[in-house]
Amino acid sequence: MDPVLGHCWLQALLAEAAEPGAPTRPCSCPLPSGDTALSRLVRRLLSARRSLDLCLFSFSSPQLARAVQLLHRRGVRVRLVTDAQYMGLHGSQIGRLRHAGIQVRHDQHSGYMHHKFAIVDRRMLITGSLNWTTQAIQNNRENVLVVEDADYVKAFQDEFERIWEEYNPANYSFLSERQ
Amino acid sequence: MDPVLGHCWLQALLAEAAEPGAPTRPCSCPLPSGDTALSRLVRRLLSARRSLDLCLFSFSSPQLARAVQLLHRRGVRVRLVTDAQYMGLHGSQIGRLRHAGIQVRHDQHSGYMHHKFAIVDRRMLITGSLNWTTQAIQNNRENVLVVEDADYVKAFQDEFERIWEEYNPANYSFLSERQ
Repeated sequence: MDPVLGHCWLQALLAEAAEPGAPTRPCSCPLPSGDTALSRLVRRLLSARRSLDLCLFSFSSPQLARAVQLLHRRGVRVRLVTDAQYMGLHGSQIGRLRHAGIQVRHDQHSGYMHHKFAIVDRRMLITGSLNWTTQAIQNNRENVLVVEDADYVKAFQDEFERIWEEYNPANYSFLSERQ
Repeated sequence: MDPVLGHCWLQALLAEAAEPGAPTRPCSCPLPSGDTALSRLVRRLLSARRSLDLCLFSFSSPQLARAVQLLHRRGVRVRLVTDAQYMGLHGSQIGRLRHAGIQVRHDQHSGYMHHKFAIVDRRMLITGSLNWTTQAIQNNRENVLVVEDADYVKAFQDEFERIWEEYNPANYSFLSERQ
């Protein structure tokens, strides 16, 4: 069992996504398997074929980071917007995702970029109260909505595109420029 | 202008809700008026006639607290679930709402009660990333969804009822009982 992932079902999901149809090793560990809120979220993400737009205040879950990296390796266009103050916190996965070649942009505000949503293939919106952190997944009371209604998806996609452009590094200003 | 509320449009909205049809005093102050995200949220809340179920991680906005108090005074049944660790923070409105006679229940977990949703008359769900704090309203990038689809509303109403029962003070345990 992968000590970082911890969950055999996730290993199986990722293995199947990476190499569809390949045999998976049986597992007899006592960890939860099958249908959990996290496994359902991962399945939705892994359904991406063309694009994954992520707008996440805080991202420290290694499981979700692995799923995102797999999509990136599979050729899905992944874009990630996050909060400048939270991306540097201990356990953040942002550095790892950047290192893997995923495009990341962040705010320059004192306020938070507090959204927590994902859009799969510009057709499925995943949003709610859940930050993508292990603390939130394991210990909090949270909600995640999955919405395919085109009007809702469009409103969030438009917000994503606005933020993506607004946080373009070409627009960043630095202290020396502000003086 | 009310120094706590600060916004004339909100004064006007609350006055109209408290006493429909009464003349409102004209206002020439330079503050934002009319249609803002906060005014739209307050309007949705003030449309409640029978019930308002609130499930809020953090609640420090005096404007939103005033709207909730007005509904309570108008005879709407208000129930509020919140997070034990956040309800005691500086600026929290929970004490004020309790003092006004509104029923409040909270978790007893180390994890957060991290939901941020409201259900108006068991028919309109208001949910998203927004905590009901002045910081979030004024400074953050946030989203608020308003949903009247019965399936979505029911899922959140069921979660509210589960939490409301689970956090019943009759079920609280105290340190001396745990030993």
